[in-house]
Amino acid sequence: MEKVDSLINARWVVPVIPDCQPLDHHSVAIRGGRIVGVAPVAEAKTRFDATEVIDRSTHVLMPGFVNAHTHAAMSLLRGIADDLPLMDWLRGHIWPAERRWVSSEFVADGTELAIAEMIRSGTTCFSDMYFFPDVVARTAARLGMRVCVGLIALDHTSAWASTADEYIVKGLALRDEYKAHPLVSSAFAPHAPYTVSDATLKRIRKLSDELDLPVHLHLHETADEVADSLAEHGDRPIARLRRLGLVSPLLVAVHMTQIEDSDIEEIAAAGSSVVHCPESNLKLVSGICPVARLIESGVNVALGTDGAASNNDLDMLGEMRTAALFGKLAAGSAAALTARDVVRMATLNGARALGLGDDIGSVTTGKWADVICIDLDRVSTRPVYDPVSQIVYAAARDQVSDVWIGGTHLLRDRVLGRLDEAELITRVKGWQNRIRVGEEERDADD
Amino acid sequence: MEKVDSLINARWVVPVIPDCQPLDHHSVAIRGGRIVGVAPVAEAKTRFDATEVIDRSTHVLMPGFVNAHTHAAMSLLRGIADDLPLMDWLRGHIWPAERRWVSSEFVADGTELAIAEMIRSGTTCFSDMYFFPDVVARTAARLGMRVCVGLIALDHTSAWASTADEYIVKGLALRDEYKAHPLVSSAFAPHAPYTVSDATLKRIRKLSDELDLPVHLHLHETADEVADSLAEHGDRPIARLRRLGLVSPLLVAVHMTQIEDSDIEEIAAAGSSVVHCPESNLKLVSGICPVARLIESGVNVALGTDGAASNNDLDMLGEMRTAALFGKLAAGSAAALTARDVVRMATLNGARALGLGDDIGSVTTGKWADVICIDLDRVSTRPVYDPVSQIVYAAARDQVSDVWIGGTHLLRDRVLGRLDEAELITRVKGWQNRIRVGEEERDADD
Repeated sequence: MEKVDSLINARWVVPVIPDCQPLDHHSVAIRGGRIVGVAPVAEAKTRFDATEVIDRSTHVLMPGFVNAHTHAAMSLLRGIADDLPLMDWLRGHIWPAERRWVSSEFVADGTELAIAEMIRSGTTCFSDMYFFPDVVARTAARLGMRVCVGLIALDHTSAWASTADEYIVKGLALRDEYKAHPLVSSAFAPHAPYTVSDATLKRIRKLSDELDLPVHLHLHETADEVADSLAEHGDRPIARLRRLGLVSPLLVAVHMTQIEDSDIEEIAAAGSSVVHCPESNLKLVSGICPVARLIESGVNVALGTDGAASNNDLDMLGEMRTAALFGKLAAGSAAALTARDVVRMATLNGARALGLGDDIGSVTTGKWADVICIDLDRVSTRPVYDPVSQIVYAAARDQVSDVWIGGTHLLRDRVLGRLDEAELITRVKGWQNRIRVGEEERDADD
Repeated sequence: MEKVDSLINARWVVPVIPDCQPLDHHSVAIRGGRIVGVAPVAEAKTRFDATEVIDRSTHVLMPGFVNAHTHAAMSLLRGIADDLPLMDWLRGHIWPAERRWVSSEFVADGTELAIAEMIRSGTTCFSDMYFFPDVVARTAARLGMRVCVGLIALDHTSAWASTADEYIVKGLALRDEYKAHPLVSSAFAPHAPYTVSDATLKRIRKLSDELDLPVHLHLHETADEVADSLAEHGDRPIARLRRLGLVSPLLVAVHMTQIEDSDIEEIAAAGSSVVHCPESNLKLVSGICPVARLIESGVNVALGTDGAASNNDLDMLGEMRTAALFGKLAAGSAAALTARDVVRMATLNGARALGLGDDIGSVTTGKWADVICIDLDRVSTRPVYDPVSQIVYAAARDQVSDVWIGGTHLLRDRVLGRLDEAELITRVKGWQNRIRVGEEERDADD
């Protein structure tokens, strides 16, 4: 018999590779943080000698979710300004609050809050874009969370860096520091075409090619962004990126509303990835990403929550449901964006977008054991004719019972081990009180 | 001091009347099943001598949700056929399954499952439309749930009745039986214009006027329904209803996609109610109900989940979020359908649609104590700048900690008292196994 660390016996395993067809009564064996076998429960019992056996007899075991676009620390601004259009929200509320409050302490606490929420709702990897990415990396590593940290770049000053050069130099140092870390990878993260100059984008393009790092940026979020770019550069943003050589397999384009058929063909041919953030796009009325058409054209479409200030949660189960419902409307077909399509978007496609397709995103022998269990034994998810449908259309985040990242059992039967949630909430309330007073003072100034 | 049964001290009370502005640190006093006072905690302590004092120090107390359109028993068909257009779904899957399986036992178990899910997610009243409404009424009354039971009418035979006359006669008997029941009210429920003849609709109109009962029906669910009606009757369905005299304050029109400006004016002038079911409309790509425009025109718009077979849950928190997100898209404005708008839709507007506006739907002295607590002290709903925003955009159903219906504490700190959920799930699994085998046999016949 083969010695393993853990053997999880699940009612169903949804492996994602080769497909999302549930495997009845299957077990997953973990050794050294990696998946070493997937087999029927009866067979696994005779094949593996496990230090720990975990029975999850009413649960789906599946890959953890990959949240392919978020700004984790913005959790501290969750609900600060809702029911407003993107630019009012950004210019009138979010940017002023960020200018006043963002610091390494803000990012540490906000990221910890986000990670607690993400683990509880089954996310095992997030792609982040925010200030103080060093703090994001350190926080994730400390808590055992997998992250693709965005090496943010802008042409304007923030608490993190002053010049485009400083952003890039600090980003490269961070990338070098974590190069061999099992949980932390990195991507360039120029904020958006409208906040980053041609010169900076060109430099990032060159570096990303040399280092084989993804380039994660907001692109075609709104019609105004497209119109402004036409006025300023004579080109739509995607055409400008093409001109600068950035439309490549390394491009991870977030939002992508307002796109044309020729854009879809070009993205597909280039092998770029798109990250769809349906709840943020709907809440800010940013526009509609034609997800079904992108997938049909062979584009790798991942799923992200965006930051909690525009969502207002980091719940990938809810995001999958919204993606399926909204995607059907956008495609004009109830058969579009099936439950299986969105599960793939939320797992494997996210991993691929981040350059981690060989490491995570499916229940596959050899990959890191980034897996979760979802308990379907609730009145809200019975009966179970199709467990994948139940996960997308009926399950809620409190049904995520267990989370392993790199084989470490971070959420065990709904108990979060590495975090003191009560103490974290106390710290968060401190931020809330300071920020609220600051907002009221600002309102009084207006 | 005034003797009361219960005094609930909440961090916030969202009363809905006069508005959704949260009241900080307020208490609600209950006596004889009704709300007898709402006051600041400190004042309530000196005013009320309560048999039981319940502290909910991190919670919002608000009216329970009114699910204004569902088919509760269809919970047993949850997830049986997803990712299909309305008519394929109905004709190919739902109707055949119903013909084979629907019985008084099916309705009893399916309704009990639905009620367990609804109470757990904060719904305190549902408006039902299904076969065996007598079983629905009996089940709800037994479990302490408030229901507006639909006196279903169709022109075709079902397990419940054979002729339009039989449906109506049985419905009237049921209405008489429960006339004085504190939890059970009733509405006529002709299924839809395309399944009910002019003669039946006219008779229902006359009876509803005499008895002052709402008329709850599916209307303008899809573009095909409108086109078919034009072909068959020479009129759009709403014009046909107008001709028959049904567009009145008693009309509760469910879905209402494909409507024109003149329809909105007419509905507003008539004082009819509309029930919006966004998740069902999106999942089946039925169409878009112009909710923001209806509300602007003064129409009373309520919220419903539709049945669990097309949703696939009965979670009004999720439905409010979808209504807000989808409503902004439909209106083309991020400022449309605010969190406060959808809270009102999910509570008071639902009550008004069912003719229960004086009895439930707000935290108001004199109304039934149909109230719930939602605990915001979770990593996913901290910080709290605005509790109403948190409820709509971030909270999940497991945060519903307590539910009272008519003053009876049915869910107490997440424990459901009157129901044995494990035993219920065992019964539901029995249905699941029988129905699945039946579906497979039918597939083999095709």
